[in-house]
Amino acid sequence: MSTLRFLGICGSLRRQSRNSGLLRAAMSMASADVRFSRADISQVPFYNADVAAVATPPSVAAVFGQMAEADALVLACPEYNYSLAPALKNILDWASREPGNPLLAGKPVAILGAGGGMGSARSQYHLRQVCVYLDMHPLNKPEVFSNAFSPSFNEDGDLVDEHIAGLVKELMTALEAWTRRLKA
Amino acid sequence: MSTLRFLGICGSLRRQSRNSGLLRAAMSMASADVRFSRADISQVPFYNADVAAVATPPSVAAVFGQMAEADALVLACPEYNYSLAPALKNILDWASREPGNPLLAGKPVAILGAGGGMGSARSQYHLRQVCVYLDMHPLNKPEVFSNAFSPSFNEDGDLVDEHIAGLVKELMTALEAWTRRLKA
Amino acid sequence: MSTLRFLGICGSLRRQSRNSGLLRAAMSMASADVRFSRADISQVPFYNADVAAVATPPSVAAVFGQMAEADALVLACPEYNYSLAPALKNILDWASREPGNPLLAGKPVAILGAGGGMGSARSQYHLRQVCVYLDMHPLNKPEVFSNAFSPSFNEDGDLVDEHIAGLVKELMTALEAWTRRLKA
Amino acid sequence: MSTLRFLGICGSLRRQSRNSGLLRAAMSMASADVRFSRADISQVPFYNADVAAVATPPSVAAVFGQMAEADALVLACPEYNYSLAPALKNILDWASREPGNPLLAGKPVAILGAGGGMGSARSQYHLRQVCVYLDMHPLNKPEVFSNAFSPSFNEDGDLVDEHIAGLVKELMTALEAWTRRLKA
Repeated sequence: MSTLRFLGICGSLRRQSRNSGLLRAAMSMASADVRFSRADISQVPFYNADVAAVATPPSVAAVFGQMAEADALVLACPEYNYSLAPALKNILDWASREPGNPLLAGKPVAILGAGGGMGSARSQYHLRQVCVYLDMHPLNKPEVFSNAFSPSFNEDGDLVDEHIAGLVKELMTALEAWTRRLKA
Repeated sequence: MSTLRFLGICGSLRRQSRNSGLLRAAMSMASADVRFSRADISQVPFYNADVAAVATPPSVAAVFGQMAEADALVLACPEYNYSLAPALKNILDWASREPGNPLLAGKPVAILGAGGGMGSARSQYHLRQVCVYLDMHPLNKPEVFSNAFSPSFNEDGDLVDEHIAGLVKELMTALEAWTRRLKA
Repeated sequence: MSTLRFLGICGSLRRQSRNSGLLRAAMSMASADVRFSRADISQVPFYNADVAAVATPPSVAAVFGQMAEADALVLACPEYNYSLAPALKNILDWASREPGNPLLAGKPVAILGAGGGMGSARSQYHLRQVCVYLDMHPLNKPEVFSNAFSPSFNEDGDLVDEHIAGLVKELMTALEAWTRRLKA
Repeated sequence: MSTLRFLGICGSLRRQSRNSGLLRAAMSMASADVRFSRADISQVPFYNADVAAVATPPSVAAVFGQMAEADALVLACPEYNYSLAPALKNILDWASREPGNPLLAGKPVAILGAGGGMGSARSQYHLRQVCVYLDMHPLNKPEVFSNAFSPSFNEDGDLVDEHIAGLVKELMTALEAWTRRLKA
């Protein structure tokens, strides 16, 4: 089996983020044939065409380098007020401005998220619409919706719920298969 | 007639933004019974619960002060990759964290936007879903969708299209009536 | 207090429908100042412009008569495959074709629904987008999402869950207040 | 090249439907390696679990037979009041009730549509959300949005616009490639 590269991005910036915990769980569950990196978006500024015209900020360039190498993306998608976390949307907006969209177009995507009552579902459907324009290929199933305000996470944001952990594992297995299928 | 206060927020940060031009047009067209301010969101950081727990950043507090006084909001809503501009979503996310949501709940809203082929329509429907959670009351009509890449704007981003200007005027008239109706 | 008229429409056609049970609960909980009717859409055919051009089918005309008298609508909204039940969407489509949209425009709306894991939420957001075009005014809150496959309903589809019953009661109180506010 | 089978379904029931015209155009443009059939949904009743429990109506069974043989679906998607045409949604709802979803799961899909100002775009995004649950794989591009009230169609609903015809051709080429890729 050839090695695949997955890049994880978490839309929440807080230290004890449950979405970050979900992403850590995903990273720990990918198979031995996957090299899994994580993007640091904490210093990425808001996209601004005036800024972009001058130079790509170093924090953005670093993520671009990771995206260029990635065979697939794993997006931990919080829900704020029934839609996307700005920090997650923003790095996708930056990446989309590269001419020809080489960083994102055609890439397989796995989406997972923790949020309020519906576990970030509303936000995830908005993200799926974004993927249409970006020409990315999100997995349909499993959808991973976890309640951020439940005992599914400990105080550090680590996932401690076995049912959800099983879904995350299933998602990683599906992403590896989907990525190999689309590369074939 | 009592004086109403409208607060305008533009989701694009670039200098020659067409969305900013739309908002300027709206500000120039409101009736003499409206005092129309504009928020400066250029320095507002990404929402982060860890940051918010320490102190509200001054740039955020300034917008909160304007929101507290506003009878209605006018949101200039760009479309990036089929969804919301992070900077617009982000200031709403900040404001929503005030206990009891006093800055936003119950407020009338007018939405207008410039974007690609569909004039930011896809983004505006996502914004409308956000308004459900925030308990805001967006006008249904007129919807103002203008093509950002057309001669409807000059190089400085000023609106120079008479048909769209007419819609913006109609939107401002409708917002004033809707605001008075909901206050009654 | 003047008497208000509410019209209830349920998107599910099956006999033991949980959505029908929710609507019955709503009808039983409206205040004494509300006259609450229910539309029969079981015989309404699919909208077809060729059919409509010849004559309005009697089953459609009957609902139109009820809509014309209604001060507000109560829509029981199932979720099929993450979107609307065709029978509910279809009667709204028929009604929207009346010139000037007098049957629907400006009307307050309360939405409630039973569905799979998310209690018809995904479908309800699609319905809210429909309301934008129809110029209707859905309540933002409370949102009533109930799990159709839970013991919240008995075998006849009657609502037997006290928490959800409380939400339905709250929704009816809110709809009466919203309707009086918009009529004022 | 092995022969592929495409099944076209049009959500509009009227005789001179522009969406039907788009589907005819698609059928005429598929390659010689495609056998393209069209479903007749004019007699399909509204989905009703009580009816389904007794027997599958013959009009539904006929479409199921076509779906079972199809390698991919081509969906002509009208927009009524900012969402889906009930007749299109309804046949997908019927098909989804087959245990294990064998008629739809995993199938590639091409979407095209004619509608008002935005050429059925709003409806198409709702359809894409439906595809998530049904585990179908819609093409991201090209998106085919054509204005139903323009001279792009003649009085019989035939597509006569060369630009849109080019997009439809591109869509058919992309669907054939996408179907072969997913089957490999």
